[in-house]
Amino acid sequence: MIKVAVNGYGTIGKRVADAVFAQKDMELIGVSKTRPSSEALVANIKGYPLYIADISKKEAFSNAGIEVAGTVEEMIAACDVVVDATPGGIGAKNKELYQKYGKKAIWEGGEAHELAGFSFNSSCNYKDALNRQFTRVVSCNTTGLCRIIQAINAEYGVKKVRATMVRRGADPGDPKRGPVDAIVLNPVTIPSHHGPDLQTVLPEIDIVTTALVVPTTFMHMHIIQMDLMKNASVERVLEIIKNHPRMGLVKKGLGITSTAELKEYASDLGRPRSDLWESCIFEESVSATDNGELYLFQAIHQEADVVVETVDAIRAMIGEVCDAETSIKITNESLGFSPI
Amino acid sequence: MIKVAVNGYGTIGKRVADAVFAQKDMELIGVSKTRPSSEALVANIKGYPLYIADISKKEAFSNAGIEVAGTVEEMIAACDVVVDATPGGIGAKNKELYQKYGKKAIWEGGEAHELAGFSFNSSCNYKDALNRQFTRVVSCNTTGLCRIIQAINAEYGVKKVRATMVRRGADPGDPKRGPVDAIVLNPVTIPSHHGPDLQTVLPEIDIVTTALVVPTTFMHMHIIQMDLMKNASVERVLEIIKNHPRMGLVKKGLGITSTAELKEYASDLGRPRSDLWESCIFEESVSATDNGELYLFQAIHQEADVVVETVDAIRAMIGEVCDAETSIKITNESLGFSPI
Amino acid sequence: MIKVAVNGYGTIGKRVADAVFAQKDMELIGVSKTRPSSEALVANIKGYPLYIADISKKEAFSNAGIEVAGTVEEMIAACDVVVDATPGGIGAKNKELYQKYGKKAIWEGGEAHELAGFSFNSSCNYKDALNRQFTRVVSCNTTGLCRIIQAINAEYGVKKVRATMVRRGADPGDPKRGPVDAIVLNPVTIPSHHGPDLQTVLPEIDIVTTALVVPTTFMHMHIIQMDLMKNASVERVLEIIKNHPRMGLVKKGLGITSTAELKEYASDLGRPRSDLWESCIFEESVSATDNGELYLFQAIHQEADVVVETVDAIRAMIGEVCDAETSIKITNESLGFSPI
Amino acid sequence: MIKVAVNGYGTIGKRVADAVFAQKDMELIGVSKTRPSSEALVANIKGYPLYIADISKKEAFSNAGIEVAGTVEEMIAACDVVVDATPGGIGAKNKELYQKYGKKAIWEGGEAHELAGFSFNSSCNYKDALNRQFTRVVSCNTTGLCRIIQAINAEYGVKKVRATMVRRGADPGDPKRGPVDAIVLNPVTIPSHHGPDLQTVLPEIDIVTTALVVPTTFMHMHIIQMDLMKNASVERVLEIIKNHPRMGLVKKGLGITSTAELKEYASDLGRPRSDLWESCIFEESVSATDNGELYLFQAIHQEADVVVETVDAIRAMIGEVCDAETSIKITNESLGFSPI
Ligand SMILES: NC(=O)c1ccc[n+]([C@@H]2O[C@H](COP(=O)([O-])OP(=O)(O)OC[C@H]3O[C@@H](n4cnc5c(N)ncnc54)[C@H](O)[C@@H]3O)[C@@H](O)[C@H]2O)c1
Ligand SMILES: NC(=O)c1ccc[n+]([C@@H]2O[C@H](COP(=O)([O-])OP(=O)(O)OC[C@H]3O[C@@H](n4cnc5c(N)ncnc54)[C@H](O)[C@@H]3O)[C@@H](O)[C@H]2O)c1
Ligand SMILES: NC(=O)c1ccc[n+]([C@@H]2O[C@H](COP(=O)([O-])OP(=O)(O)OC[C@H]3O[C@@H](n4cnc5c(N)ncnc54)[C@H](O)[C@@H]3O)[C@@H](O)[C@H]2O)c1
Ligand SMILES: NC(=O)c1ccc[n+]([C@@H]2O[C@H](COP(=O)([O-])OP(=O)(O)OC[C@H]3O[C@@H](n4cnc5c(N)ncnc54)[C@H](O)[C@@H]3O)[C@@H](O)[C@H]2O)c1
Repeated sequence: MIKVAVNGYGTIGKRVADAVFAQKDMELIGVSKTRPSSEALVANIKGYPLYIADISKKEAFSNAGIEVAGTVEEMIAACDVVVDATPGGIGAKNKELYQKYGKKAIWEGGEAHELAGFSFNSSCNYKDALNRQFTRVVSCNTTGLCRIIQAINAEYGVKKVRATMVRRGADPGDPKRGPVDAIVLNPVTIPSHHGPDLQTVLPEIDIVTTALVVPTTFMHMHIIQMDLMKNASVERVLEIIKNHPRMGLVKKGLGITSTAELKEYASDLGRPRSDLWESCIFEESVSATDNGELYLFQAIHQEADVVVETVDAIRAMIGEVCDAETSIKITNESLGFSPI
Repeated sequence: MIKVAVNGYGTIGKRVADAVFAQKDMELIGVSKTRPSSEALVANIKGYPLYIADISKKEAFSNAGIEVAGTVEEMIAACDVVVDATPGGIGAKNKELYQKYGKKAIWEGGEAHELAGFSFNSSCNYKDALNRQFTRVVSCNTTGLCRIIQAINAEYGVKKVRATMVRRGADPGDPKRGPVDAIVLNPVTIPSHHGPDLQTVLPEIDIVTTALVVPTTFMHMHIIQMDLMKNASVERVLEIIKNHPRMGLVKKGLGITSTAELKEYASDLGRPRSDLWESCIFEESVSATDNGELYLFQAIHQEADVVVETVDAIRAMIGEVCDAETSIKITNESLGFSPI
Repeated sequence: MIKVAVNGYGTIGKRVADAVFAQKDMELIGVSKTRPSSEALVANIKGYPLYIADISKKEAFSNAGIEVAGTVEEMIAACDVVVDATPGGIGAKNKELYQKYGKKAIWEGGEAHELAGFSFNSSCNYKDALNRQFTRVVSCNTTGLCRIIQAINAEYGVKKVRATMVRRGADPGDPKRGPVDAIVLNPVTIPSHHGPDLQTVLPEIDIVTTALVVPTTFMHMHIIQMDLMKNASVERVLEIIKNHPRMGLVKKGLGITSTAELKEYASDLGRPRSDLWESCIFEESVSATDNGELYLFQAIHQEADVVVETVDAIRAMIGEVCDAETSIKITNESLGFSPI
Repeated sequence: MIKVAVNGYGTIGKRVADAVFAQKDMELIGVSKTRPSSEALVANIKGYPLYIADISKKEAFSNAGIEVAGTVEEMIAACDVVVDATPGGIGAKNKELYQKYGKKAIWEGGEAHELAGFSFNSSCNYKDALNRQFTRVVSCNTTGLCRIIQAINAEYGVKKVRATMVRRGADPGDPKRGPVDAIVLNPVTIPSHHGPDLQTVLPEIDIVTTALVVPTTFMHMHIIQMDLMKNASVERVLEIIKNHPRMGLVKKGLGITSTAELKEYASDLGRPRSDLWESCIFEESVSATDNGELYLFQAIHQEADVVVETVDAIRAMIGEVCDAETSIKITNESLGFSPI
C-alpha cells in the first residue's frame, strides 16, 4: 500500500484524494486545509484525516464542527508520497519540508517545471518517472495537448502544431474571479506559455499556442491544427482517439455542441462531480486535408483531467508498476472510468 | 408496485425518472423523448425503456445508436400514473391522451393550475391529493415558498409575506437562453405571478412577490420577509428548518456565501447531478425583529426541489400511503437524502 | 471660478472631471493617475493636466506617450477643492495631505462617513454642506435610495422601507472581478450596511436592506417597498418622479424590461459613455396598495449617479450657491442633462 | 444629394442612419420599424422620419408617443438607395419591393451572397460596386477578415489563412440570447462558413476558419495565422495597419488586454455608442516567424465595423465617387473618425 498525503484539499486536491482513496494499491493517509470550510467538513464526512498547517487554528475548526487530526508536518512524516495541490506558487515553498523528511512529492501545473525537474503525462513519459523523488504533473491545458499530440505524432508524425486555448474564467465553485463580460487575451503576446510547457514533456514538438479567457466556469476549449508528415484519414484518427484510455469522442447525433451540454452529459452519466477525466474530442470536428493538415476541437475539464495523471505519477514514482498501460488501466478501473 | 411513466425526459423528467426508479413501491415503466439526444442515450444506458411520440422517427434514433421501445401511447396505456414533464404548455395538449386511457396524471409547474384543478406540495396538502386523477406540482419557486411559509405559518401565524425571486437565466445544460449581461425584470409589473401561484396551495396567505432574471445557471435566490402574528426567535426558526424534511441550513462558518459554493458543496457531498432537493436557507441570514418581522435568504435548486414532491404526489394519488410524513420519509430514504 | 482637482482618475474620477470641465463656474485644474494607462492617455487627449503621486514614474508615462504635468501634491496645492476618487480606503490616507494645504475635500462612497463627518446628497441636505471643509458623497446605491425615499417621505411620510439591491458584479471596463456564474449574498447577514449608510443622510428613516451581487456589468437594480403614513396614488408618485431633477421614468410601451435595454437607450440618446445620471424608475412597476404600501423597481447606473451629486457638493462647499435647486439646475444644464 | 432609406432601424440600421445623416452628400429620408420601442422613439427625437410596414399599427405607435411618417413602401418609393438592415432572412423577402420601384438596395451580412450577386468591402472591391443595383455588405466577422487579409496579401502575398473567431453571444442591448455559461461550437464542424464568405470578396484566398460563441456582449475576437509568400517584419506590418483607414492598433503600454477595456477606451474617447468602426489589432500580438508565418489578435466590434463599409457601398452604387480612397476619406471625416 502506497501511503499518500494530499497537501492542499481544494479543487484539484479533493479530486486527487477521492481518486487515491479508490485505488487498491494506495492508502489516503490524510489531506490538509488552512481554513475551516465546507470542503474541510466534507473531508470529515468522508473519513479522510484532516491536517492543518497552523495548529493554533484548531479551535477555529472545532467551532465550525470540523475535526482536526494533526499538523501538516505530521502528515508529511507519515506518508510515502505527497501530492501538493496548494495554489500555484505555494507548492514551491513546501519543497523544503518534503526534503526534510526525504519524501517523494508531486506538484501540479501551477508550479514551474524546474521545481521538480521533471514534467509528467501518463501517455507520454510514464517510464521516465519511475522511482523519481520529484515530479510535476503538467497543467490541465498541457495535459490535454500532450494526449492528442503524442497519439497523432506516433501515428503520422507531427511537423507543427498551432493551438488556441479558450479558457474558462473561474472554476464553478469560485464566485470571486471574473471576467463577467469580456474576452481577455492572456497573454496579449503570441505565443502563450503553453507551447514551451508542452515541450517539457514532448521536447521535439514544434508548437505555437495562443490563449484567451472567457466568462464560463467549466472546461477549456482547444482549437487544434497540426501539420503532419503524411496525410491523415479521419476514420483512423477517430479510431486512435477511441482506443486511447484518456480520450473520448463527443459523438455526432447526440446534439452536444457546447461545454454546457457536455457537462450535463457527464452529470447524466452519474460521474462523480460530473468529472470528465478524458479529453473530449468532438467527432464532427475532426477534419483532415489532402495536404497533411488535421483540425479538431477538444474540450478539457480543467478540474479533472490531471487527477488521473496524478494517480499514475504516484504509481510510477513508487516504481512497482513499470509501464503506463498497466497503471492507466488500474487507475481507470478503480474509478469505474471508461472514456465517453 | 406503482407503474410510473415519465412523459418528457428532460431537465425535470430525467430526475423524476431516477427518483421513481429508486423507490421500492414504484416501477419506472418508461420515459419518452421526441428527438435523439445524449439524454435519450443515457436512458438506454440506465436501462429505462424509451418511448417516442412519432414512431416514424425510430430510424433517426437507431442511427444515433439509441434503442426505442415503442410509442408514447403504448407507454401511457401500460402505466398507472404518468408524470408529464414536457415543456410548459405542451403538457396541456397531452391531457386528452391521459383521459383516453383513464390514467392518473401529474403535471409540473409550467402548466396552469386549472389543467389539473389541484396544485400540490407535500408539506402543505398531501392529504388533498389522495386518490386524485390529476395533480399539478407547483413550480420550483413556488415549492420553495410553500415549504418555508407553511412551516412558519404553523408556528407563528403569517400576516403578510413579501418575497423577491432572483432567478437563474438558463438551466446549466442549456446554451441558448440568456441573458448574457443584464438584470431582467420578469415581469416589470409588481406583483409577479408567484404570489397567486402560492395561493393555489396556501390560499389564506397574503403575499406580494417580485421576480428578476440574472445571468446564472444554478439556483434561484429568494429574499423573504414576513410579518408574523407574534415575534419569532431566530433559534426556534432555525430549529423548525432543521426539523423539516425538505429544508436545510447553509451553516455559518463554512464560508458558503453564494449559489456557486453551495452547488460545489452538493457536488462534494456526492449528490447525484449535485442536486439539492431541499430549500437551502442561509443560517446567518435568518433575522427576527421585535415587531414581528422575519427575514431570510433561501437558495432553491430549480432542477431538483420539485422532483421529491412529484414522487410524493404519485404516492398520494395512488392512495395507499395516507399521510405526508410517511411518504416524505420513504421518498427521502430511497434517495439517501437527508437535508444539509 | 472654483479650482477643482480630481485625485484618482478612474471610473468615477474621469466622469467627475468631465462634469466639472462642463461647469461654467468651475475650472478643472488637474487629474491624477498612478500608472500609465489608456485613461491617462485620454486625459492628455482631452487636455486635462495629468499629475502623478510618484514623480519617479514620469518616465514610464513618457514611454507610453503620456505627458505628466507634475506631482499630486502640486495639484492639491493649486486647487480650491479636491475630489478624491481613489479606490475605497485609499482616500482616507490622503486626508492628511488635504489638511496640510488647508484644502476642501470630497470623498466618494468607498470611504467611511466618519472620515468627512458629513455625508451628502443634493436633494436631501445640500444646505448642510454649505462652506464645509470635508464632505462625503454617499455611494451609488445609497444615492439612489436617498433620492426616492426623500421625495416620497416629503409627500406621504415614510414609516418603514425595505429594499433589496441586486448589484452588478464588476464595472464594464473591469475584466478581473467576478462572479462568472453565481448569485452572491453580500453580505449573507441581514440587514446590509446600506440602511445605516442611508441614515447618515436621512437619519429619521426606518429601513432594512439586503444586497446580492450578480454577473452583470451595468446598473444595480433596486426592489423597494415602503410603508407610508397615508395611501399613495400611483399617478401622484409618477408625477413626483417626473418633477424630480435626478429621477426619470422608464416609460411603459417602449419595451424596456432590463438593464441591457436601458443602457442601449442611454447610448441611443447619445449620452456620453451612455451615462444615466438619474435614477431610472420603471413606470409600470410603481404600485400602491390600499393599506399604505408602495412598491417599485429602480435601476441605478453605478458609474454615473454620484457624479452629478459630487458637482453639487463642490458648489455647496464653496458656498456661493446657497440652495440645492439652483445648483442642481446649473449642474444638469451644463451637462445637457434632463432625466429620461 | 443621395436619398437614403434605412429599412430596419435596429442594431445596424440605427448606426447606418446616423452615419448617413452625417454625410454631406447624402440625405436620410427615412427609417423603418415594425413595433413601437425605445429605438423608434429615438428616431423621432433625432428627427428621422419613421415609416412602418403595417400602417394599421400606427395607433400602437401613437399610444407610445411615437410619430409615424407613413409606410415603408412610401419610403422606398422616395429614396435612391435603400439599406436593408432587417434581421437575417427578412431582407430577402424585401427584394421584390425594391425591384418593383427599381431602387438600388444594399443588404447586410445576414443575407446570402446570391441575393445581391455581389459582396462588398470598401478596401477590397469598391470599384466593382460602381453603379450596381444590388450589393451585400459582408458580415462583421468577414469585414474584419477582409481588411487585414487584403492588406497583408498586397504586401507579402498570402498562401494560406487559418482563423478562429471567438464570437460574442448577444448584442449588448439584447437580454434574450445566451449562452449564460458555455462555450458553444458554432458550428461543431470545421471549417465554418466564414472562409467561403470571405471568398465572395477575395476569391483567391486559401482560408480555413473555425468559430465559437461565448457569453460576452461586445466584440468578436479573431485569432489569425497566415502563411505568407515571404517573411514579414513586425515593424512593417504595424506600419501597414497604422496606414490603413479602417484598422487601428491597440497600443502596448496602455494596459488594454480585453474587449472590456477596449470598449471602455472607445467610450472614454467619446465615440458615439462607444463604436469601434475600425478593426482593433493588438500591437503586442503581432508576431512573425522566419518561415513566413504571421500571427495576430484582432477585436471586431460587431455592431460598428460594417456601418462605415455600408456608407461607402451607397456611394459606390451611385457612382459619382469612383475610388475607394476618396469615399473612405469622406465617410471617416464626416464621422470624425480616425482609427485608434
Ligand atoms: N483549478 C484548475 O483548473 C487546475 C487545473 C489543473 C491544475 N491546477 C493546479 O493545481 C494546483 C491547485 O490548484 P487548485 O485550483 O486546486 O487550487 P485551490 O485554490 O482550489 O485549492 C488549493 C487548496 O490549498 C489549500 N492551501 C492554500 N494555501 C495553503 C498552504 N499554504 N498550505 C497548504 N494548503 C494550502 C487551500 O485550502 C485550498 O483548498 C495549482 O498548482 C494549480 O495550478 C489547477
Ligand atoms: N427547468 C426548471 O427549472 C423547472 C423547474 C420546475 C418545473 N419545471 C417544469 O417542468 C416541466 C418540464 O420542464 P423542463 O425544464 O424539464 O423542460 P425540458 O425542455 O428540459 O424537457 C422537456 C422534455 O420534454 C420532451 N418533449 C418536448 N416536446 C415533447 C412532446 N411534444 N411530447 C413529449 N415530450 C416532449 C423533450 O424531449 C424534453 O426532453 C415544465 O412544466 C416546467 O415548467 C421546470
Ligand atoms: N465604480 C463604482 O461603481 C462606484 C460607484 C460609486 C462610488 N464609487 C466610489 O468611488 C471611489 C472611486 O472608485 P472607482 O470605482 O472610480 O475606482 P477605480 O479603481 O475605477 O479608480 C480609482 C483611480 O484612482 C487611482 N488611484 C489608485 N491608487 C491611487 C493612489 N494611491 N493615489 C491616487 N490615485 C490612485 C487609479 O489610477 C484609479 O484610476 C471609491 O470610493 C468608490 O467606492 C464607485
Ligand atoms: N448585430 C450584429 O452583430 C450584426 C453585425 C453585422 C451584420 N449584421 C446584419 O445586419 C442585419 C440586421 O441585423 P441587426 O443585428 O441590426 O438586427 P436587429 O434585430 O437589431 O434589427 C433589425 C430591425 O429590423 C426591424 N424589422 C424586423 N422585421 C422587419 C420587417 N419585416 N420589415 C422591416 N423591418 C423589420 C426591427 O424593427 C429591427 O429593429 C442582419 O442582416 C444581420 O445579419 C448584424
